[in-house]
Amino acid sequence: MAVIAYIGLGANLGEREAQIRAGLAALGRVPGVRVLDVSSLRETAPVGGPPQPPYLNGVARLETALSAPALLGVCQQLERDAGRVAGGPRNGPRPLDLDLLLYGDERIDTADLIVPHPRLHERPFVLEPLRELGVEPAALPRPARPLVVADPEEFAALNTGWLHGRCRTGLVPTMGALHEGHASLLRIARQTCDRVAATIFVNPLQFGPKEDFARYPRTLERDLALLAREGADAVFVPETSAMYPGGFVSRIAVGREAEGMEGAARPDHFSGVATVVAKLFALARPTHAFFGRKDAQQVAVLRRMTRDLGFPIGLVECPTVREADGLALSSRNVYLSPEDRRAAPVLYRALRAAHAAHAAGERRAEALLAVARGHLAQEPRARLEYLELRREGDLAPLAPGPVTFARLLVVARFAADGPHPVRLLDNLSLGAPLDA
Amino acid sequence: MAVIAYIGLGANLGEREAQIRAGLAALGRVPGVRVLDVSSLRETAPVGGPPQPPYLNGVARLETALSAPALLGVCQQLERDAGRVAGGPRNGPRPLDLDLLLYGDERIDTADLIVPHPRLHERPFVLEPLRELGVEPAALPRPARPLVVADPEEFAALNTGWLHGRCRTGLVPTMGALHEGHASLLRIARQTCDRVAATIFVNPLQFGPKEDFARYPRTLERDLALLAREGADAVFVPETSAMYPGGFVSRIAVGREAEGMEGAARPDHFSGVATVVAKLFALARPTHAFFGRKDAQQVAVLRRMTRDLGFPIGLVECPTVREADGLALSSRNVYLSPEDRRAAPVLYRALRAAHAAHAAGERRAEALLAVARGHLAQEPRARLEYLELRREGDLAPLAPGPVTFARLLVVARFAADGPHPVRLLDNLSLGAPLDA
Repeated sequence: MAVIAYIGLGANLGEREAQIRAGLAALGRVPGVRVLDVSSLRETAPVGGPPQPPYLNGVARLETALSAPALLGVCQQLERDAGRVAGGPRNGPRPLDLDLLLYGDERIDTADLIVPHPRLHERPFVLEPLRELGVEPAALPRPARPLVVADPEEFAALNTGWLHGRCRTGLVPTMGALHEGHASLLRIARQTCDRVAATIFVNPLQFGPKEDFARYPRTLERDLALLAREGADAVFVPETSAMYPGGFVSRIAVGREAEGMEGAARPDHFSGVATVVAKLFALARPTHAFFGRKDAQQVAVLRRMTRDLGFPIGLVECPTVREADGLALSSRNVYLSPEDRRAAPVLYRALRAAHAAHAAGERRAEALLAVARGHLAQEPRARLEYLELRREGDLAPLAPGPVTFARLLVVARFAADGPHPVRLLDNLSLGAPLDA
Repeated sequence: MAVIAYIGLGANLGEREAQIRAGLAALGRVPGVRVLDVSSLRETAPVGGPPQPPYLNGVARLETALSAPALLGVCQQLERDAGRVAGGPRNGPRPLDLDLLLYGDERIDTADLIVPHPRLHERPFVLEPLRELGVEPAALPRPARPLVVADPEEFAALNTGWLHGRCRTGLVPTMGALHEGHASLLRIARQTCDRVAATIFVNPLQFGPKEDFARYPRTLERDLALLAREGADAVFVPETSAMYPGGFVSRIAVGREAEGMEGAARPDHFSGVATVVAKLFALARPTHAFFGRKDAQQVAVLRRMTRDLGFPIGLVECPTVREADGLALSSRNVYLSPEDRRAAPVLYRALRAAHAAHAAGERRAEALLAVARGHLAQEPRARLEYLELRREGDLAPLAPGPVTFARLLVVARFAADGPHPVRLLDNLSLGAPLDA
């Protein structure tokens, strides 16, 4: 019943050693806790946080029959008893710091507590005292980050653990070939959530028979490096057969939001998108999911699916990330020839021109469209596929009358007569600040 | 930061008062806990459990800065320190019992802990000491059971709380008009799960235009009484407009499992069932869901939907409950005229006869079907709609050859020529024990 636990000890305010010793003594008087051994205490430079005095650090070995949450609660209380104030700066100075480093062999992953401590392997002031107590840190489990999961059941179980741990969990569904647009989704997810999971799956259901499913860029190694850099906790990389087992039939119907624009150009595309995202939602049960607003109609379709099926998930539409010349980032930009790449920013220039006209007071839909069309017509490499003004939010057709607030969406084709045309999408809100 | 908490005190082994006093003294020495007041201790007869000596009971008021899980962990440790052995009989004798009754105004609802204590209002040996300490129990929140929830967001939030509390949660989707078959589902759910939620929703998507949607029995008051009797924790009773908001389109396609039998008789029925159950799964995120095997094809369709969309939910198919004369319970049995009610057990008699023939060694599909058909033909009030042998599990058409293990499914119509025919379903596994 009792387990061996290791607690990191620290203080950099007041009588540092006395506070650490008093905290340990009080810990040893708690029912179900016995302090077995304490490393030497050493002086250490602070890690992060504001300018502050050096720390005294060490590690204690305990035997405890308390549950990990109970032990954590008691340690937090001892920190408060030593005069620590809740809500101080992150990594700020403190009279006593008690971190649960190890709790038997258990792995704990909750909003309040991760064990083994996630920074353990980076911190000499923890590693050295652990060695002094006979623990070889190299032998401890070192969770990969991101954790790469291919099995749907394993991904569901990981997310169940996070739910049990009261984590807000952000899901970032992608088809891989990650770029700075995805990095931005991951950063926004990290700000909102305790855990972030990306998914990488080139979803055959959303590609038409003549589309670029086979040719879609697949860059897993680079994707994993970007996910690691952005602090993703996990990435789900399933095989197609795991997502769509034999006999798969449960496609999800889509409606008005999927009509016109991309829905007209790509039959069944949005039903494929809604189906795969519903499956990811069903599996992972995140609290939030993050999508780029470049794919504006996709966001409208997914909002409908999410509301219809009642998933209690907040959909977060994130701003489009652009190259310096205004081209919206897209995994398909790599297909562009150098000449087309130079021509491609015409889409954003056209949208910006309409935005400027609107800001200057133009409210007639046809006039706004004509401004954008005029720019697009100047670029012969871009073959306009559609240019539409739609209602904000659900992207329904705009009611007649003055345009006060609307989304302008454009798609043009480059290399349109070659074997591999490249469709580029972009959109902009008129009546809102740029990139809002 | 500190809250006032009340702890129930009990002991019925050893030096009862000394153990309670020692436990309280140790509790008062825990960092972040102060014992403010203790009621008088009184002798009480045991509640439930094996024959055992009387209890000494009381209540203590604490001030505590510990989190509720930490306080719970410390109390459990003090129980162990007093000699209590984990895994003893439920409500069995113990040297020390410390129950968290109240923790400030918080409501806690986890697999380990419910606060306010759910049995508080039933127990004079808790109520009297609480009054002695100045708490008027009548003023305390008294959670309704089942909690009746109409709003989907509220139902989702309730289930999120249970997920955060690590509860195994059982969902029992129904259309109301509950009978002993539903009661049996609820009892099985209670055995498997920490929390049980039923849903009552007469789902328009699963009724054809000529079917009995408007006429389907609605008996909410009686349903709530049955749910209370069976210990359901919550029941979700949404309005149709809340389940299918304006513009609802996200129907879920069904496939092979929905072909033939009920799927042939009721076009779109199973797509409506799959859609509503997927929505309930998305909202509630239960660990288990319970369905009656009388609706065998429905179970096969829902297994497919669940697997396709990746819901990490265990589907539990529960045995059919029958009247004494063998008629399978159904909400639609109330439609039967007295004469038809007397005739209706012919379905089960026919299935039993085929089961007996199979048990006696008959392996020819046609011969087994003929046995059942012979019984059905003797009852002129029953107009046979279909009688089919199907593969166990997915109910696919049976491969040719000897029938070793199969499901025999029957549907007959009563009052077939009247304005309101009644379709009755039943099925039985051949090659398995009866009602397995």
